Amino acid sequence: MVQASTTDLALLSIGQAARLLRRKEISPVELVDASLARIERLNPSLNAFITVTRESARRQARAAERGIRRNGPRSPLHGIPVSLKDNFWTKGVRCTAGSKILGDFVPDTDSDVAIHLERAGAIILGKTNMHEFAYGITSENPHFGPVRNPWARDRISGGSSGGSAAAVATGMCFASVGTDTGGSIRIPSALCGIVGLKPTFALVSLTGAVPLSRTMDHAGPLARSVVDTCMVLEAIAGTYPKGIPRPNHRRLRQPHPKRFRLGWPEQFYFERVDEDVRRMIDAAAKTLGQLGARIETVSLPYLQESVQASTNIGLTEATNYHESQGYFPARAPEYGDDVRGRLEAGENVRAVDYLEGFAVKRRLERDFDAAFERVDAILAPASPIPAPRLGENEAEIGGAKESVRSLLVGVSRPANFTGYPAVSVPCGFTRAGLPVGLQLIGPRWGESGLLAIALAYEEATPWHDRHPVLA
Amino acid sequence: MVQASTTDLALLSIGQAARLLRRKEISPVELVDASLARIERLNPSLNAFITVTRESARRQARAAERGIRRNGPRSPLHGIPVSLKDNFWTKGVRCTAGSKILGDFVPDTDSDVAIHLERAGAIILGKTNMHEFAYGITSENPHFGPVRNPWARDRISGGSSGGSAAAVATGMCFASVGTDTGGSIRIPSALCGIVGLKPTFALVSLTGAVPLSRTMDHAGPLARSVVDTCMVLEAIAGTYPKGIPRPNHRRLRQPHPKRFRLGWPEQFYFERVDEDVRRMIDAAAKTLGQLGARIETVSLPYLQESVQASTNIGLTEATNYHESQGYFPARAPEYGDDVRGRLEAGENVRAVDYLEGFAVKRRLERDFDAAFERVDAILAPASPIPAPRLGENEAEIGGAKESVRSLLVGVSRPANFTGYPAVSVPCGFTRAGLPVGLQLIGPRWGESGLLAIALAYEEATPWHDRHPVLA
Repeated sequence: MVQASTTDLALLSIGQAARLLRRKEISPVELVDASLARIERLNPSLNAFITVTRESARRQARAAERGIRRNGPRSPLHGIPVSLKDNFWTKGVRCTAGSKILGDFVPDTDSDVAIHLERAGAIILGKTNMHEFAYGITSENPHFGPVRNPWARDRISGGSSGGSAAAVATGMCFASVGTDTGGSIRIPSALCGIVGLKPTFALVSLTGAVPLSRTMDHAGPLARSVVDTCMVLEAIAGTYPKGIPRPNHRRLRQPHPKRFRLGWPEQFYFERVDEDVRRMIDAAAKTLGQLGARIETVSLPYLQESVQASTNIGLTEATNYHESQGYFPARAPEYGDDVRGRLEAGENVRAVDYLEGFAVKRRLERDFDAAFERVDAILAPASPIPAPRLGENEAEIGGAKESVRSLLVGVSRPANFTGYPAVSVPCGFTRAGLPVGLQLIGPRWGESGLLAIALAYEEATPWHDRHPVLA
Repeated sequence: MVQASTTDLALLSIGQAARLLRRKEISPVELVDASLARIERLNPSLNAFITVTRESARRQARAAERGIRRNGPRSPLHGIPVSLKDNFWTKGVRCTAGSKILGDFVPDTDSDVAIHLERAGAIILGKTNMHEFAYGITSENPHFGPVRNPWARDRISGGSSGGSAAAVATGMCFASVGTDTGGSIRIPSALCGIVGLKPTFALVSLTGAVPLSRTMDHAGPLARSVVDTCMVLEAIAGTYPKGIPRPNHRRLRQPHPKRFRLGWPEQFYFERVDEDVRRMIDAAAKTLGQLGARIETVSLPYLQESVQASTNIGLTEATNYHESQGYFPARAPEYGDDVRGRLEAGENVRAVDYLEGFAVKRRLERDFDAAFERVDAILAPASPIPAPRLGENEAEIGGAKESVRSLLVGVSRPANFTGYPAVSVPCGFTRAGLPVGLQLIGPRWGESGLLAIALAYEEATPWHDRHPVLA
């Protein structure tokens, strides 16, 4: 038996925990209790969970214990405590999507993601807090309270999967599954100092997830390391086109990508970036160069135009969904002001502009495809600024005030629009001690290559081993 | 040698002409000359062709003559003169789409339909007149003059494939391929007394066809009989899903559909129908009953709602296409007033209404699918009124004035919206001597069954043997 304290157990990597479980040196019940203890201690101040499913988690843990004892673990996630963003349907457990409108909604079926996690043997500890209906990037939820950043509680966790990121960063769970329509996995991962992957469009099933924008919605993992992220992806990913191997955490280092090429975009991504963030990303690029990467500039001329196009599409599809469900405008007063405002804006997009957006999408895909002929991944900030203070809608960059939402969505949205995979990995801290994320964007179905590069970087740097000091 | 006069040759069925060609009793050159003679005589008054490709047609005819002499015909269309609506690209031959904007446009590649026809050995005589950009149902073309109805030259041929229908009805060609976004094959077929088939969505390739509304555009044949229609479909159709046999004109009678079930819609289709037209359709239903059909009412509750939904989609997609090409609004004065007006209207559709249209589409498909559980085809008018006079925008039905466009598109559009196949077959004449068309709508990929029913009806009635008396 290892002499692991509850604290230590909760912050193990999934691989470490899985090894202890396999060797029967710990029990899933201990892992669940370690995580639940953290939830009990930290959730009142961080507000990462909307619903904690203590009893069913303990029941599942005992079942996992029996299962592992009898047949060994059936996957690296067997017996591992995880959480689910509260916009994934969970049978018999309420699914609020962070809203008042769905405040009492208890689904009678599981989302595909919940089914896949349970099949892998993961133990679902609860449903995490989020921006209302995933329609925002702060997770300042008017109905369930804001998720607070574990590194500075007067700051946002980022969103919309803010509760997932805060919970993973603080050991309230080992990993989480969130959704990402305009950065909602990558942004909170960056602001909370963890790894977040938005996979290729449609790789992870959204059946049983409350939609935001159907052509840009993605589901994907948040975890404390690249390998953990890969393990969760393996459990929830659907099928790849013929000939493309599924990501496999055991093969991420084989062959080690000794010579890889990275693209540095000459447009848009680095035009408005906080000085500290830029410094960390420059250092990350240098590290990657030392690891064997050749870095060259790539041109993505349609990026700027894609921002307005993807905004039109996002606004339209969100309002269309809420109208189709009878939520909006019928129950307009029940939304938070920001979300209601966006739903109203969605009513006024012209259909020709919505459609033209898809022509821009095709042009943007061609931009990226041309770049991926030359490079294996493209570098970008995961967020151009560190976590803003709660309630702060503007940030200063280069002396000018900019909208926080525009800044954060701007660098994230292109990968939602193209549907290409993108991962945020921790790449350092600002002078104020706030985490910074590096974004790596890969070609369609290129998760394996992308995670291999992210892993090489992670192993060469200390950032993912830092945890917030918590009272 | 048969002693066929030029007139007789031009009005043969494709099957009859193919038999004579196979037996070498006539030559493709004679067929082409017979058709060209008709064009020369009739086109100045009917205005069915925009471009006649005399020389290349004669050249192709001589090549077909040699080919048939050497190896026999390679398809029932080998050596058969046909025409193409002028919105299909034809390599080296201008393709105006009935517009001034594309008045000098000479494509450097062929449309898929042109390629398929040429592979089958058909001889393309020219490009037929049409409603400008296929965006209307009268074929009153402001740039190339109106197509006149062969049964009454002061009346419209219907549109947008009006030139195709008038040319086929008068023996200027044996068949034509048109497009149908809101009835543009079926309406002119009905008003000119021929057969017109709008196949299942995407069965016939639209590559190289000038688009109108991409989710509702279809290409399909116009011909003088059901078997001829089937022969042309065989040449131009793409692949069917596995397990569904391709239509085959030789098998349309085997097994003869002795017991078939037909649906009489209790909503919409028969609510506003001219008295004479209704009388002919009632008679057609009676004939079908005598042939063994059991006719029962079917309920299609979403039909009414689908009209506005499909209008929103059509308006949006048309304006988006013309904007994307830089035609509109840049060259607005070069459009006819009606088309410009529709393009302007397309600018104001809201994106949420466009998107909601697809939800209505799915509901309408469910309506039809439920009906097709019980019946093999659904009966409707192909046009609720006979051909209106040129310039007449309104028609009187039951004492009320109604928009001609609404009346004609109304009964056609549902099959464009669902993408289900629909055929118009001649079913009689009004007291004023104008042709009336019966519309039969079938399930997705159901062309074979639909044409079998249409053939059974055609063989029991004299209507398809009537030709307009022409000076």
